Amino acid sequence: MASTLDSVIELAKRRGFVFQAGEIYGGTRSAWDYGPLGVELKENIKQQWWQTFVRGRGDMVGLDSSIILPSQVWQASGHVETFTDPLVESLHTHKRYRADHLIEAYTAKHGHPPENGLADIRDPETGQEGNWTEPQQFSGLMKTYLGPVDNEEGLHYLRPETAQGIFVNFNNVVTAGRKKPPFGIGQVGKAFRNEITPGNFIFRTREFEQMEIEFFTHPDEAGTWFDNWVEDCWNWFVDLGIDPAHMRRFDVPEDDRAHYSAATIDIEYEFGFQGNAWGELMGIANRTDFDLTNHTENSNAKLQYFDQASGDRYTPYVIEPSFGLTRSMMAFLVDAYTVDEAPNTKGGVDKRVVLKLDPRLAPVKAAVLPLSRNEKLSPKAQALAAELRKRWNVDFDDAGAIGRRYRRQDEIGTPYCITVDFDTLDDDAVTIRKRDDMSQERIALDEVPAYLAAGLGC
Amino acid sequence: MASTLDSVIELAKRRGFVFQAGEIYGGTRSAWDYGPLGVELKENIKQQWWQTFVRGRGDMVGLDSSIILPSQVWQASGHVETFTDPLVESLHTHKRYRADHLIEAYTAKHGHPPENGLADIRDPETGQEGNWTEPQQFSGLMKTYLGPVDNEEGLHYLRPETAQGIFVNFNNVVTAGRKKPPFGIGQVGKAFRNEITPGNFIFRTREFEQMEIEFFTHPDEAGTWFDNWVEDCWNWFVDLGIDPAHMRRFDVPEDDRAHYSAATIDIEYEFGFQGNAWGELMGIANRTDFDLTNHTENSNAKLQYFDQASGDRYTPYVIEPSFGLTRSMMAFLVDAYTVDEAPNTKGGVDKRVVLKLDPRLAPVKAAVLPLSRNEKLSPKAQALAAELRKRWNVDFDDAGAIGRRYRRQDEIGTPYCITVDFDTLDDDAVTIRKRDDMSQERIALDEVPAYLAAGLGC
Repeated sequence: MASTLDSVIELAKRRGFVFQAGEIYGGTRSAWDYGPLGVELKENIKQQWWQTFVRGRGDMVGLDSSIILPSQVWQASGHVETFTDPLVESLHTHKRYRADHLIEAYTAKHGHPPENGLADIRDPETGQEGNWTEPQQFSGLMKTYLGPVDNEEGLHYLRPETAQGIFVNFNNVVTAGRKKPPFGIGQVGKAFRNEITPGNFIFRTREFEQMEIEFFTHPDEAGTWFDNWVEDCWNWFVDLGIDPAHMRRFDVPEDDRAHYSAATIDIEYEFGFQGNAWGELMGIANRTDFDLTNHTENSNAKLQYFDQASGDRYTPYVIEPSFGLTRSMMAFLVDAYTVDEAPNTKGGVDKRVVLKLDPRLAPVKAAVLPLSRNEKLSPKAQALAAELRKRWNVDFDDAGAIGRRYRRQDEIGTPYCITVDFDTLDDDAVTIRKRDDMSQERIALDEVPAYLAAGLGC
Repeated sequence: MASTLDSVIELAKRRGFVFQAGEIYGGTRSAWDYGPLGVELKENIKQQWWQTFVRGRGDMVGLDSSIILPSQVWQASGHVETFTDPLVESLHTHKRYRADHLIEAYTAKHGHPPENGLADIRDPETGQEGNWTEPQQFSGLMKTYLGPVDNEEGLHYLRPETAQGIFVNFNNVVTAGRKKPPFGIGQVGKAFRNEITPGNFIFRTREFEQMEIEFFTHPDEAGTWFDNWVEDCWNWFVDLGIDPAHMRRFDVPEDDRAHYSAATIDIEYEFGFQGNAWGELMGIANRTDFDLTNHTENSNAKLQYFDQASGDRYTPYVIEPSFGLTRSMMAFLVDAYTVDEAPNTKGGVDKRVVLKLDPRLAPVKAAVLPLSRNEKLSPKAQALAAELRKRWNVDFDDAGAIGRRYRRQDEIGTPYCITVDFDTLDDDAVTIRKRDDMSQERIALDEVPAYLAAGLGC
């Protein structure tokens, strides 16, 4: 039987949430394009995030920094030296793996880490006794060259995290934005990591989107803000519909934390992966003054804050809630995926697949469905769709039986189906069907926008 | 005297619309980060574009494809072979220039092209008689390598245009999105070009954002759709406040068109650059069946459309309206920049700088200004700001004289300033001041959200 995760992936590909990148050329391994429904869902997640964490808060502002930054930034941040993964090769298959991932998988399966390290780990593909090369450190940074010649001078890196673009602009934001700690800077954007073993659909890819916050506080208040942010992030997912029973906090032990972190809590989601079902949805890290101090030591700027009231000069601590946008999207899809029953035309019931996405996230807000292709119904229905498109993403579908059209909208999570029927020609009203309970209401045509606005929250 | 363009650039840097990327490390030449105001303005432009051209139209859908695509895509598209610029070096200064840009500048200045080609063109820096190397073709594609070794197998390119990600997904969208021509796919995203001579602030940069549409039509209808799109694009800028007197259409002659284009109209804006004041804001190209045909010939897919009704199988023609997002932002800023007069406290008038941005684009929608820092006014004002932040980006400012605070909001284009004064404590009302005419109205506190919604269009 297909797992929920398998069903979600199949649905996502078939309905145009996600396509394999470069598919017609055989595809780039683990790279994905977002189709008409995927881009809408992704944009809606972004906008909810931006509204909650940036526009909605008086202590936050936004930023959009460059993807390509000078190599000095990544030297100062420690990424050139330490942003590496231990690469091993199986001598049976000559495939490459991350040693830490092999050990994690072993530990999840056996309940304890391998006593003899890699020697205990079998080849994941053939099941043979492991025969591994020595781990080699492999840089996760992607390079590119600016200018006409590929030389040291032109060497730049694609950012592996959006965070550094925020740190190097700390003084700019304090001055131009007239901000003082505690305050934070939020950013949404692409990041790039030369992963050895990308995989699990859109969970781990070389090109991905992050939604990051760097929150600057007085060092004495960092602990309190860390706890606040863990709560705020957890609540954001729950408010947008993730069942808290499918999430858990993981206090990352010191050895497994990133080089800059004094404390990290990961929020994990039960994606249902084979082996270890849980995966990291986001992490909240206490980066201390690591980054601002390193940039101060390596650049021509002093990234500190001078508090005029107290006369105190200090390097702020940074609390970093870092969200994976595409991982969040995957979690919202898995959590929304539901199979229930719907009445069929024979008086019985059929299986129904429905994405119970929060209406704020749903890629299509409403579908206008003329009962049949008819020269009187079609213009009425088209006019209604055009009116609603002034505010929302709206589908128009006049192909096939109405029950089948409902199923098509249910499985992409459309909150409202609006049927234009022959009565509409007389009463100027339509039938609005709700996705989750399939209840129907008759609503006057000119009241439809207000009806939707109330249900959709704008 | 500073030109309007100079004033806009100064304002943009000072107030945090735009910062130089990597500034604390000396900066990356012609790379820019968008600060708290810049990111809001940019997002608002994107959202208006997406609403007008994607969500708002029944014949359009969205897409978000990868930045890194396999090299085969760029071989088939012709970019590996022909996406090059003629690079020349001045033997006086050893600086590099694009030969075509030198010739354009000469032509704009003299009213005719140089009779003897480069030989007539003086060194732009020293004014000496030109002494140029032979032009060499220089690839505008940025490379990166995926996987552990920098070899041919791992060679990928950063996209120089978002368009190809759309073409290679043509069949996916037709099938999953149940679309048939005429229909279009819109995409917003970063693109990368290894420009020899980036410059003019955010006008030409190596990393930039595009908003592109690929509109697929029957070949017979391509001409009509081309004309429609030129009108629709022009009107979009005018509707959002660009004075049409500052725009013009330029019919690009065959020799200057991109390798894929059978016809191109550029919409140019009068930025006020030195030399040639006008710059390309966007272009509408008729790409014919060039791209779909090339991908069909080079991949394992047939990018054609079969019309079941007529039995006609054809390769659609593509009309491409391609917008520069950051160029659009620059045009909106320059066009909104206004100097007028405002009353001062001495009964006279002072010079006032005001960004007359369309309220839909304004980065800050309203500023809440308690008349003074006071234990009774502050909580009232903070509560109002918190309420308004549920829907809009809102500033709170209690520092300095009220006139000075108005000026700060005027120069960033904030449509509404809301003053909380001592009368507010009695009448539960506030004074709302409008940016452009500086008129003031007394509005009940609980009516403020509806008042703003009416003025801001949501």
